[in-house]
Parts: sequence; C-alpha cells; structure tokens
Amino acid sequence: MSGYALPIQRLIKELSRFPGIGEKTATRLATFLIRASVDDAKRLAESILDVKERIRFCRVCFNLTESDICDICRDPSRDRGTLCIVEEPDALVAIEECGTFRGVYHVLHGALAPLDGIGPEHLRLQEMMDRINRDGVTEIILAMNPTVQGDATALLITKMVAGLHVRVTRIAQGIPVGGDLRYTDKMTLSKSLEFRRGM
Amino acid sequence: MSGYALPIQRLIKELSRFPGIGEKTATRLATFLIRASVDDAKRLAESILDVKERIRFCRVCFNLTESDICDICRDPSRDRGTLCIVEEPDALVAIEECGTFRGVYHVLHGALAPLDGIGPEHLRLQEMMDRINRDGVTEIILAMNPTVQGDATALLITKMVAGLHVRVTRIAQGIPVGGDLRYTDKMTLSKSLEFRRGM
Repeated sequence: MSGYALPIQRLIKELSRFPGIGEKTATRLATFLIRASVDDAKRLAESILDVKERIRFCRVCFNLTESDICDICRDPSRDRGTLCIVEEPDALVAIEECGTFRGVYHVLHGALAPLDGIGPEHLRLQEMMDRINRDGVTEIILAMNPTVQGDATALLITKMVAGLHVRVTRIAQGIPVGGDLRYTDKMTLSKSLEFRRGM
Repeated sequence: MSGYALPIQRLIKELSRFPGIGEKTATRLATFLIRASVDDAKRLAESILDVKERIRFCRVCFNLTESDICDICRDPSRDRGTLCIVEEPDALVAIEECGTFRGVYHVLHGALAPLDGIGPEHLRLQEMMDRINRDGVTEIILAMNPTVQGDATALLITKMVAGLHVRVTRIAQGIPVGGDLRYTDKMTLSKSLEFRRGM
C-alpha cells in the first residue's frame, strides 16, 4: 500500500475500516473510485454525509428515519397492539419486505452479549416496557436472531413482561423454505423437530 | 432496500456501484456508516473527494501521482534503461513492494481485449514507444498478467519493438513459492515445465 500516493493510501485506510473489508478489497475499491467519474465519486461522498446528517432514530420505535417519528409508527393502519421486537433496523426492513406484518416494531439496537460488554442497559428495553404499558400492546413477537445472543435477549424480555397481560411469541425456527434435510445443520433440524406443528 | 429511509437507500445504491459489492454488502456497509461517528464518515467522504481532486497520471510513466511527475520517475537512482511495462498501477505497486526492481515503469492502463472493445489505441503504447526511442531503454520487461489479454498485449509490444535494439523479457510464469504441484492447475504446470531453467 505504501507504493501509492498519499491521498490513495488515506482512502484505502478509510475504506478498510468497513467491516469485512481488508486492505486488498479496500485497494480494489479505491482503484475503482480513481477510475470513476468525478461526479460519481462526489455523489458517493455526498450520500455518506447526507446519511449522517439526515438519519436519526424514530422517537417511538428507534427505527432509522428522516423524521422525528418513522413512517411505520405514523401509519394509522398499523396495529399498535402487536409489537415486533427486533435487534437491528435491518431485521425490521427484512420483515417489512415480506409485506405481511401489519403491527409495529421496536428496535433494541443490539442483543445481550455479556462477553462483549453488552448488557440490558445498552438495549432499548426501558423504552420497550414504557410502550407496552402505554400503548395497550396485546402481543409481542420476539424476532431476535436464532443465536446465543438472540436467545438470551428473548429470554430476558419474556421474564421482563411476565407480570403483564401480554402474549409473548417468538418467530419460528426450522428448515428454511426450499431447504434440504440432508444439508441442514443438526441444531436447526433439532429445532424443527422440537417445534413441529399439527397439520 | 425500499424499507429504508431515502438517504439510506441512496447510499446503498451508490455503494453498490463498487465492483463486487452487491446490494446485501452495500446495505451492510451503509449500516456500518450509520453507526460510525460523524467524524469517521466525514473523513471517508473527504478522502474520496481528495483522491479525485489530487490524483493524476504521471506525465512520464502514467503511474498515479499527486505531482506532475511521480516519485519513481523523479528518483535519480532509478535505472532509466530498464523499463517495466505493467497493465495497471496496482501491478506497479505490487512490484515496488518487492523492493528489488531498480528500473522505471510504464503503465498501459489496460490490456488488449478486442471483445470488450479495447484495442491498441486505448493503451498508452505510443507514449511507451516515444520513451523507448528517447530515453535509451536497453531492456523492456513485460509484466502483464498471465491472462489471454496480458499475453496478447505482450505479443503486440514484442512486435512493436522488434526493429529496435532492445532486449524484451517477460516475467516468469510457474508454480508460486510455497505452492504444491498436486494443487497447481494444468496450465501453470505446463508453463513451469516449458520455462524450466538450468540449475
């Protein structure tokens, strides 16, 4: 990398801060930017600054939004009684793209990971409890990832809301659609057996 | 992606222009930027603009540089009689990092690829010929990639300089250091046999 002119070295360094982008990939990306038109590069730089300037958390659900309250929370047709709890905004987007969920969301911005120093106080749990108490929530759907951290978070929330009259469910784990039992890992297969449903 | 706020969608679109970066990876990078500090994001945006503003081609060898003539071409200790021809600036950097080559370079900015519409007129070949004639070059080392395009380019240059009293060599192809014959592809193995050297 030291063979490149200074501004290129700097760009490579900045690009390699991205997760999963090493020096080689960063160099490839930098090379692409050097070849790109000035307009293209400007558009990218501006869109980076734009996101930092305009994107904030929804005051209600902590989704990413341009406004004080996000589109979903403002939509009068959404069912405020059904609250879907997700770890991250990406999960919210993935569920929205299914187009079948008509409730509202709450984004925790993380999952319990004591080994990484992430405890309950780092998640938007208090805000979640406030909403459940305030908005007449009747069901909360735990849409954490099926990981150790997601499982721990789901368990914690289940305990937190135990005293309230709220139905608590968790999204199903099992064989993915189009999957093949031969190539499914043992954990997933066990879960799909454990959570079998009547036909 | 349509579930994200507009500035995020725009950033994802701009990031997915990078080669090898699809929408999923672009979304991951955008998410990282959203979480990053404003300062980090600004530094990245600035380094992108900076590269576009400050980097140009060396007037002599067409390497990327901040000045009119690059550091290598200005270095009086480099041997101007030995000219290493490369396809791209990255190749130049790779060779420089070996630290053993003391000649100078010429960057073609591409390789012959008639199917992609890249002919001799798209490469810095005329400038190469001018240098060979002007600078008393005694050897040109063809450091094209060992690909169909690189081979075609090497062949073309060999023909172009045939009348001049210049030694033409090409960097060796063969088993990479630390490689294993069992796992080496047939083409490489054939080349390593064909180009065997006396001990």
